[in-house]
Amino acid sequence: MTIDIEKANQTTVERMMNARPILKSVARARDVIPGIQPNLLLHAGPPIEWPRMSGPLRGAVIGALLLEGLAKDEKQAVGMVEAGEINFEPCHHHQAVGPMAGVTSASMMVYELENVTHGNKAYSNLNEGYGKVLRYGAYSEEVLAKLRWMNEEMGPLLAEAIASSEGIDIRALLSESLHMGDEGHNRNKAGSILYTAKLAPLLAKASKSNDLLSETLKFLGENALSVLNPVMAACKAMADAGHGVEGSTVVTTMARNGTDFGLRVSGLGDQWFTAPAEVPDGLYFPGYTSADANPDIGDSTITETAGIGAFAMAAAPAIVTFVSGTPQDAINATLEMYEITVAEHSHFTIPQLDFRGTPTGTDIRKVIELGLTPRVNTGIAHREAGVGQVGAGLVRPPMKIFEDALVAFAEKYKL
Amino acid sequence: MTIDIEKANQTTVERMMNARPILKSVARARDVIPGIQPNLLLHAGPPIEWPRMSGPLRGAVIGALLLEGLAKDEKQAVGMVEAGEINFEPCHHHQAVGPMAGVTSASMMVYELENVTHGNKAYSNLNEGYGKVLRYGAYSEEVLAKLRWMNEEMGPLLAEAIASSEGIDIRALLSESLHMGDEGHNRNKAGSILYTAKLAPLLAKASKSNDLLSETLKFLGENALSVLNPVMAACKAMADAGHGVEGSTVVTTMARNGTDFGLRVSGLGDQWFTAPAEVPDGLYFPGYTSADANPDIGDSTITETAGIGAFAMAAAPAIVTFVSGTPQDAINATLEMYEITVAEHSHFTIPQLDFRGTPTGTDIRKVIELGLTPRVNTGIAHREAGVGQVGAGLVRPPMKIFEDALVAFAEKYKL
Repeated sequence: MTIDIEKANQTTVERMMNARPILKSVARARDVIPGIQPNLLLHAGPPIEWPRMSGPLRGAVIGALLLEGLAKDEKQAVGMVEAGEINFEPCHHHQAVGPMAGVTSASMMVYELENVTHGNKAYSNLNEGYGKVLRYGAYSEEVLAKLRWMNEEMGPLLAEAIASSEGIDIRALLSESLHMGDEGHNRNKAGSILYTAKLAPLLAKASKSNDLLSETLKFLGENALSVLNPVMAACKAMADAGHGVEGSTVVTTMARNGTDFGLRVSGLGDQWFTAPAEVPDGLYFPGYTSADANPDIGDSTITETAGIGAFAMAAAPAIVTFVSGTPQDAINATLEMYEITVAEHSHFTIPQLDFRGTPTGTDIRKVIELGLTPRVNTGIAHREAGVGQVGAGLVRPPMKIFEDALVAFAEKYKL
Repeated sequence: MTIDIEKANQTTVERMMNARPILKSVARARDVIPGIQPNLLLHAGPPIEWPRMSGPLRGAVIGALLLEGLAKDEKQAVGMVEAGEINFEPCHHHQAVGPMAGVTSASMMVYELENVTHGNKAYSNLNEGYGKVLRYGAYSEEVLAKLRWMNEEMGPLLAEAIASSEGIDIRALLSESLHMGDEGHNRNKAGSILYTAKLAPLLAKASKSNDLLSETLKFLGENALSVLNPVMAACKAMADAGHGVEGSTVVTTMARNGTDFGLRVSGLGDQWFTAPAEVPDGLYFPGYTSADANPDIGDSTITETAGIGAFAMAAAPAIVTFVSGTPQDAINATLEMYEITVAEHSHFTIPQLDFRGTPTGTDIRKVIELGLTPRVNTGIAHREAGVGQVGAGLVRPPMKIFEDALVAFAEKYKL
């Protein structure tokens, strides 16, 4: 079998870069995400069942069952799960992504994006902000109250505002925010206020209550991660556009469930390659150390998959105060990623590197040849359910998943 | 007479850097700016009378007289001015600053800031956005209609929103925006959306009309210069805090009226040193060349005076697409300014330079010794009244004003 891997890889990245995801609506997961069921919970990362789930993912599962009203308390929730009454599937199997635990249930309001170039859709839940949040495995009444407010108050207002517009071009927003010190994964300060500023006039027109409007604008504007979830869905739409190209060795999914790091490759269909996720190396909040840290978790590595996040570190020198290092380290991080990628992004450019495009499209062959895995910026979750974020830092996927993928590639294509 | 110039200069810059200007209110100029009169127009730069005024300043004067209802048409306005019925004084003589022509009249809504460290106040008009605007000398009905909307619709809503808050800390906002790719003079994209996002919840609470609220949020959020005027007033409050220190050779005012570039020095009281303003060197909008350009105009050089703007270019690599040059030129511009300044700012830092403070407090002695004048980023106005902006670029003040100031310093202090 003769395959032109270089050409296939170019097709993959061109599809990824040409994808133009537009935020089109906010709606209930059950009304829009394909295949969702009342007793199905979506989660971040590759497939995993309850016995192997880490603390933060278990916490988020419990929280979602409480939110859905399927369980009255933690005990009942765990009992239902252990009795096999709840099904678990990756967000990635449903055109969706979620930060950290990524747990998404039927009644949650979600963002719906459409890649208007190729027609595929992608979904993500709404960002909860800081402090005690479901995505870090917290499920206290305070956490659930905020989720209910997001689902019943803010969500419908967002839905009406976005419906009244022609949609929000998230690729264009990212292009702008990368010129404003964001890298799009751990640092989304500029993107989040750009997003808030774009939504504000629409929300004002849609509003029926000054108080809810004011609360919503404050919630979006003060959360430097407001835009992370639409950004992740945009990256998912881009990565999906590049998935399934025969003969391509470009990575189209990187995702972690808190136990395993999972990888998928454009030319290898829906097969996951997994290995144990590592504990990130970074800065911890006061009172916490790496002994408190859960292994790497979340679908947010979809940003690096699409050519931003740690790959665009050079654009975000101020991030080093949050994840450790110097501005020169940030430049070097991006320069290193050019070694293992196949293209420079045509829409995401880095002023600090004379407007060079971000390194895009990780080639598993280059990863193996150079012994160099992709860089990932990430938040760090406490290893126990219900605690929350304890730091932020850098991590790399295990080399084994690239090795396994390359072996599978050689087998499939009889190389 | 024995004076310790070094010590005096440290006092000046410490006062400038410790100044914390808070945006406290929006009000009519006549109600807050000291010494304002119905027949008095404030303008940018050092003192100037009608016969020597450049096109854009004349245009703004005509527009202000139409706006105030003092004249019915251009002819009547010019007649009044030529008959000596209108007085002109610099904004700087009234604790105020204005971008480009800087014309400020009694009925205009203005920002009022208070430096809560030292108690002094500073004022600036509201930013009109792009296109045909009074500050570039345009005075068509479209220009006046927008000014009326700003004065009668948006202004009162802004006033109510800000009055309901504890004020907006513009120094803190600038610290943040310098980490988001702004330099605070020509590039205020991040600052303007930070400003919009901070105002949005307050505006929502104060709003009595969804339409006006929506229009206001759109106007603020889509204008990447929304925050320029409060930023300029903040810089004015900082510079004024450092003015009047006996024996100090630090510059506390740089301002241009479109004909002359004016300088004032902390230890030299209210004396202006002036020389003809130069034409900026930069990029022109399609259809225009340097032959269309007016000499340098506006009070916005108060930003460089306070240690941002061109002095903070290294923080804003993306600005080079607007004013010409490369990101390395931007780094070099800031490095050069350390040569002629006496301090590194304690609140304004540059991630790209390992969080080094911006060069702050231009020392006229160093300017002369090194033959190196301050750098200035600026918009470029058409030389004729009523046309508007034709480009943006870089300019330097004439060396003569520093020489004259140093001679005056030597005379005053008998050196």
